[in-house]
Amino acid sequence: MTAGALIRELEDVLPPGAVVTDPTSLAAYRTDRAHDPSAQAPRAVVRARSTAEVQTAVRWAAKHHVPVIPRGAGTGLSGGASGRSDALVISTELMRDVAVDERTRTVVVQPGLLNAELKAIVAEHGLWYPPDPASFAICSIGGNIATNAGGLCCVKYGVTVDYVLGLEVVLADGRVVRLGGPLIKDVAGLDLVKLFVGSEGTLGIVTEITLRLLPAPPPHRTIIAWFRSTEDAAEAIAEIACTIRPSMLEYMDRAATNAVEDMLGLGLNREAAAFVLAASDEQDPEGREIAFMLEALRRHHPISADETAAERGAELENARRSAIPAVEVNGRILLEDVGVEIPKFAQLVHGIEDIAARNQVAIPLLAHAGDGNTHPLIVFDPADAAEEARAIRAYGEVMTLAIELGGTITGEHGVGRLKRPWLERQIGADALELGQRIKSAFDPDNIFNPGTIFKEVHE
Amino acid sequence: MTAGALIRELEDVLPPGAVVTDPTSLAAYRTDRAHDPSAQAPRAVVRARSTAEVQTAVRWAAKHHVPVIPRGAGTGLSGGASGRSDALVISTELMRDVAVDERTRTVVVQPGLLNAELKAIVAEHGLWYPPDPASFAICSIGGNIATNAGGLCCVKYGVTVDYVLGLEVVLADGRVVRLGGPLIKDVAGLDLVKLFVGSEGTLGIVTEITLRLLPAPPPHRTIIAWFRSTEDAAEAIAEIACTIRPSMLEYMDRAATNAVEDMLGLGLNREAAAFVLAASDEQDPEGREIAFMLEALRRHHPISADETAAERGAELENARRSAIPAVEVNGRILLEDVGVEIPKFAQLVHGIEDIAARNQVAIPLLAHAGDGNTHPLIVFDPADAAEEARAIRAYGEVMTLAIELGGTITGEHGVGRLKRPWLERQIGADALELGQRIKSAFDPDNIFNPGTIFKEVHE
Repeated sequence: MTAGALIRELEDVLPPGAVVTDPTSLAAYRTDRAHDPSAQAPRAVVRARSTAEVQTAVRWAAKHHVPVIPRGAGTGLSGGASGRSDALVISTELMRDVAVDERTRTVVVQPGLLNAELKAIVAEHGLWYPPDPASFAICSIGGNIATNAGGLCCVKYGVTVDYVLGLEVVLADGRVVRLGGPLIKDVAGLDLVKLFVGSEGTLGIVTEITLRLLPAPPPHRTIIAWFRSTEDAAEAIAEIACTIRPSMLEYMDRAATNAVEDMLGLGLNREAAAFVLAASDEQDPEGREIAFMLEALRRHHPISADETAAERGAELENARRSAIPAVEVNGRILLEDVGVEIPKFAQLVHGIEDIAARNQVAIPLLAHAGDGNTHPLIVFDPADAAEEARAIRAYGEVMTLAIELGGTITGEHGVGRLKRPWLERQIGADALELGQRIKSAFDPDNIFNPGTIFKEVHE
Repeated sequence: MTAGALIRELEDVLPPGAVVTDPTSLAAYRTDRAHDPSAQAPRAVVRARSTAEVQTAVRWAAKHHVPVIPRGAGTGLSGGASGRSDALVISTELMRDVAVDERTRTVVVQPGLLNAELKAIVAEHGLWYPPDPASFAICSIGGNIATNAGGLCCVKYGVTVDYVLGLEVVLADGRVVRLGGPLIKDVAGLDLVKLFVGSEGTLGIVTEITLRLLPAPPPHRTIIAWFRSTEDAAEAIAEIACTIRPSMLEYMDRAATNAVEDMLGLGLNREAAAFVLAASDEQDPEGREIAFMLEALRRHHPISADETAAERGAELENARRSAIPAVEVNGRILLEDVGVEIPKFAQLVHGIEDIAARNQVAIPLLAHAGDGNTHPLIVFDPADAAEEARAIRAYGEVMTLAIELGGTITGEHGVGRLKRPWLERQIGADALELGQRIKSAFDPDNIFNPGTIFKEVHE
């Protein structure tokens, strides 16, 4: 069958307009936010409007051995949705239905709804969906499921997987299977729901999600601290993280702070080596958590450490959320997501400073510090091939450092295609091989997202 | 090889005393707390003292195609550790090492330590391991991992899987693999840690566990309410569960309450149809959660609904924990673990009353009501074959009812061998088949706990 005939067969079984093939439109599906330069425009995109359409597209792909790249909002940061010219992208961006059930405090949602949209919808019912990636305004729930996304409140309220009760999934053979459901406790059979969360589109395409919700979030109080030394900040963070349960414990270094200040002009301290943003939502009029955090921060020689007004707190939380786009203004970035045990946070930060100096690249750093999860942002000028090469070297060195410290190459963004070469070194050949057994058992022809997490068979 | 020579080969590769073969000792390994009458004494038991000994025993079993039944404290309630005469039991009861790390707020523990022992040890460090099965004084951490055990505080603090960061596992081929680790956030590769939790010994034997801990639990306030009608109690529970986050929301019916009162003599209300035990650990001097719960309970026509002193609260929590042994005094029990969405709790309770009446068996009921998870206890006299037959019929009818209500056959005890015939009807043939693919990929010769969750190949 010619390439044109193949696509016409797909168009024939889907509604008009569902299959995108014009080069201008396809270009928008070439990369995700990792901007992998080696990504290619896909052969075609199906913008599905229903589970049945996803199923139809998967059956076509399985029949013709066409690789499938599942895609949400395209905001992934590890190249898990990088396009390739032989592949079909199945996008869930148009699948946006949502239904809140106040009586069971759950919501059933399709994968294309954005995280912030979901939060707003459930808030109208006095409810709360906690996971809040910094990118929550632009990332989709489907993508959050694919990567088991974290965020700022996760230090107290957990990550995506902690809220997923049920999934509907299209398998590699085109079957639609429902896993879990609205029940809060259910141990009937292996936990396939939690296995699909974080599987980065390698096992199937999630078409519907049942999420557990909490009551509306309690009000919180916010502390801002500035430090002359990153070690002091790290020590204070470690003391807080092992003693209480802050509802937020974030960190930015000087370079990240300056990039944010350049963009937003919020009057941030451009001279400080480290910025710590901490919050407590404890409903205690004595404010013991806030008092403890202030003491802990002040014990470690800050420039200042003070509670801030709610409005200013929100502004600074937004500043922290804006750090990645703010740094991107200065060049292209290779985005890291490495994590360590919290007592090793200072070691990780120092090691990254060494890597930056040795490779002569800027690596501004932000962190969900209370989880030990950092985002070093390796900045380079894509027009400068030598600098790009140094940046790529630094990217690998940061992951190697994290592994040497007993840490992870990815805390919340996923392995994607970009971090796959380091995965085995972290988790070991045996764990990788166990994962490969599941991949092979679920998707024997390797049609789903080949090259993400697992090697392609032909490599 | 003769049976004797086979066992001698095992004895030769393990330390003296590790292999148990005398009939008196073996009898103690015949059943777990499900007391399945069809269980058989195993061929031998290895009481392992180290990962290496588990590994040696698994290799021997794999070489000779001997089924392996992993066993913790033997307190399982679904027959997941029922013995069989052709099998080797590998018991982890002697593996009891534990090491707390305050700086990372984690603990590394071997599977044989009891839940209550772990709680006490971490409490010495000012820390808290929340999951608290009613049986916490006698169940082991390894068993908790195997079933993804719940408990009383889970309504607010989650179940076992929410605290497991890392595992060491012996696989069917005798390899030892480490999964996850001490990191709070880590999405590198498929989440095999969460897959092993709740896998009931069908995928491997867990030999070491890394658990996340919380700061010491805050003090809580307790409410006791008595109702004339189970519907009223159920409505009040549903209202509380969808509005706030109680730290405990438990239920017992009249028959369970009377059994506990017979055993403990605490002055419980023998006439009330339903008992509700609710707690809040909100640190709010205005006590808004307690006030809300009292209002909600009082709106639904209770006999009484009052806050109780801390000491009496602890006594009644203990009463609730004693319900299963208290009911067991009246005969043998078939223990159910069915759950539904909370708004369907009253329907489930009524349906079970019908099943009890129709089958002329007593079915006292207790529940982690805030999770929709109930424990109907079907009581029968094992000397009365007709009554036993009616009890067995009722056992199946209760699961069928839960499935018809969109619920689960097991919320926290596991499928074991006793509930397996109902599993497919709940989760569907496709989900069961996906689980079977994982089982076959991890344990192709089906040596680990055959008949638990999955059918035996020869069936």
